[in-house]
Amino acid sequence: MPYDFPAALASAATDTEAALDHLLTTGALQGPGDPPERLVAAMRHGSLNGGKRLRPLLLRQAAEVFGVPPARTVQAGLAVEMIHCYSLVHDDLPAMDNDDLRRGQPTVHRAYDDATAILAGDTLLTHAFGVLANDSLDADPAVRLRLVAELVAGAGAGGMAGGQMRDIEGETGFLTERAIAQMQAMKTGALIRASVRMGAILGGATDEELAGLTHYAEAAGRAFQLADDILDVVASPEVMGKATGKDAGAGKQTIVARIGLEAAQRQLGEMIHDALSALLPFGERAEGLRATAKFFAERQS
Amino acid sequence: MPYDFPAALASAATDTEAALDHLLTTGALQGPGDPPERLVAAMRHGSLNGGKRLRPLLLRQAAEVFGVPPARTVQAGLAVEMIHCYSLVHDDLPAMDNDDLRRGQPTVHRAYDDATAILAGDTLLTHAFGVLANDSLDADPAVRLRLVAELVAGAGAGGMAGGQMRDIEGETGFLTERAIAQMQAMKTGALIRASVRMGAILGGATDEELAGLTHYAEAAGRAFQLADDILDVVASPEVMGKATGKDAGAGKQTIVARIGLEAAQRQLGEMIHDALSALLPFGERAEGLRATAKFFAERQS
Repeated sequence: MPYDFPAALASAATDTEAALDHLLTTGALQGPGDPPERLVAAMRHGSLNGGKRLRPLLLRQAAEVFGVPPARTVQAGLAVEMIHCYSLVHDDLPAMDNDDLRRGQPTVHRAYDDATAILAGDTLLTHAFGVLANDSLDADPAVRLRLVAELVAGAGAGGMAGGQMRDIEGETGFLTERAIAQMQAMKTGALIRASVRMGAILGGATDEELAGLTHYAEAAGRAFQLADDILDVVASPEVMGKATGKDAGAGKQTIVARIGLEAAQRQLGEMIHDALSALLPFGERAEGLRATAKFFAERQS
Repeated sequence: MPYDFPAALASAATDTEAALDHLLTTGALQGPGDPPERLVAAMRHGSLNGGKRLRPLLLRQAAEVFGVPPARTVQAGLAVEMIHCYSLVHDDLPAMDNDDLRRGQPTVHRAYDDATAILAGDTLLTHAFGVLANDSLDADPAVRLRLVAELVAGAGAGGMAGGQMRDIEGETGFLTERAIAQMQAMKTGALIRASVRMGAILGGATDEELAGLTHYAEAAGRAFQLADDILDVVASPEVMGKATGKDAGAGKQTIVARIGLEAAQRQLGEMIHDALSALLPFGERAEGLRATAKFFAERQS
C-alpha cells in the first residue's frame, strides 16, 4: 500500500490541534495565577489558525523510522508547533515584517494589539517548554531534557530567532547567495532540523542514525524554503492566503532573487535528491519522511 | 557572626554576571548556526546592565536552607535572571510601557531598534531553558525538569507574562485593591516564587518544606512590589536610575494609589512579618531569606 501523505498530514494536524486546544483551555496552562482570557484568546488566534503542522508531521515521521507510534509524538510535536506559531506572531509585528494577514485572517496584532501579540508570542514560547517538561510526554526524564535542548538550539540565537535577526539585517545590505542560504538555514531550517531530530531522539536513534536524519532535515529544510521563495514569485495571493510577490516588493533577499527562477527550481530538485539520498539507509521505515520531501518539491501553497 | 546581606547580594550578582557573560560570548549559545553579533550584543545590553540579581540571590538562599553550596545554584539562578531580563526588554518596548531608560541607560529598543529588542527578549527567554537543560546544572535529570516546569509556571500565562497582560488591561478600567494584588502576584510575585521554589527543589525539599518556602516567597514578593510602588512615590529619579512618579502620571493602578501611602507602608510591614513567620520552622538555615525580606522592607532604590 503506498504511503498516504494527505492522510498523514491531516492526522498530524488533527492531533496537534486537539492538543493545542486542550492546552489553551484556561486552566491547563501552568502557573500560580489564572491566565487572562484575552491572552489565551490571542494565543489561540496565533496558533489555532489552520496551519499545515508540517513540523509535527516531520517529528512524527522521524519517530516512525524507529517504530514509535504517532500518539507518543503528539506532545513533542505540539511543543515545536508552539515555537513555530510564536515566531509567526512576533515576525508579523509592525516592528518586524509588518504583516496584516496570515492564512487569510488578521494577524494577532491586528486582531488584538501589539502588546497582546508580543505577550501571546512570549507565552506560546514559554509554555512550549512546559509541554516538554511534562512527564506525560516520555517516561524518561533524560529524553525530555534532550528534547528541551534540541528545541532551544532550533529556536534560539543560533537557530530560528538568529536567522530572523540576519534576515532583518540583510534588508540594509547585499547578501551573497551563500549568506542567504546560511540565513535561511537558521530562520527556517533550524526548526525543521529540530523537529526531525526530536522525533529521532524519541525513537532512541543512535548517533549515526541521528546524523543521517539530520542530513535529511537540513536538505529538506532548504528545499522547503526554496519552494516557499519560488511560490512567492509564481503563486497567486488567493491560493497562498497572504500577500505574494512581497519578497521582491520589499527588496527581500532570496535565492530566487539572486540566481533566478529556473536555477532556483533546479537547486530545489537537487536538494530533494539530497534529502532522499540521506534516507537510503532507513529503507521502508522512512517512507513518511520521503513523502514529505516530495511534497516540499511539489507543493502549490 | 551576623548575616552579611550586602556581601551575599554582591556575590550572587558577581556569579550571575560571570555566568551570563560566559553564555553570551558567541559560541556558547546552542544552535546549528552562529548567533548574529548584533543579537548577542542586544542580549548583553538587556542583561549585563547592573541589575541587582535579587532572584538568583533568593534562589541561592532557598537552596542554602538545605545546605546546597552557592556554586551549585549559579546556573539555575542564571536561568531565572534571563527570564527577568527578557521581561524587562519586552516591557520597555513602545507597544508596552514605552520606557527609554533602564538603570540610567538606554533601553534595548532605544540602543538598537524594536525588532532587535523583540528578538533579544525572545532569545534570552529561549536560552534560559537551555541553561536548565544543561547537565552541568544538576546530575539528576528529574530535578532539572522540575526546574523547567517551575520556571514555565513563573514566567508564563498564569505567571509573569499573564500579570503583564492584566496590568495592560487594567489601564483601561478600574481595578480593585484585590485585583491589583492579584495582578502583581502574577507580574512580579510569580517569578520571585519560582526563584525560591527552584532553590528549594535543588535542595531536595519535602512537599511540606516547599509549601512553607512558597508561603515565604509569596509574602516577600508582595512586599517587594509594595516597596517598589512606594519608592515610585517617594524616591528621586537620580536614585532610581529611571523615571519616578511615573505610575501616577500614567494612571497606573497600584496599591499605593488605591489605599494611600501610609496604609501601603503598614501593609508592607505586615507582609514582611508574614514572610518572616513562614521561615520560623527553618531556624538559622533561613537567615539569608530572612535578610532579603528585611532588605525588601528597607530598600531605598
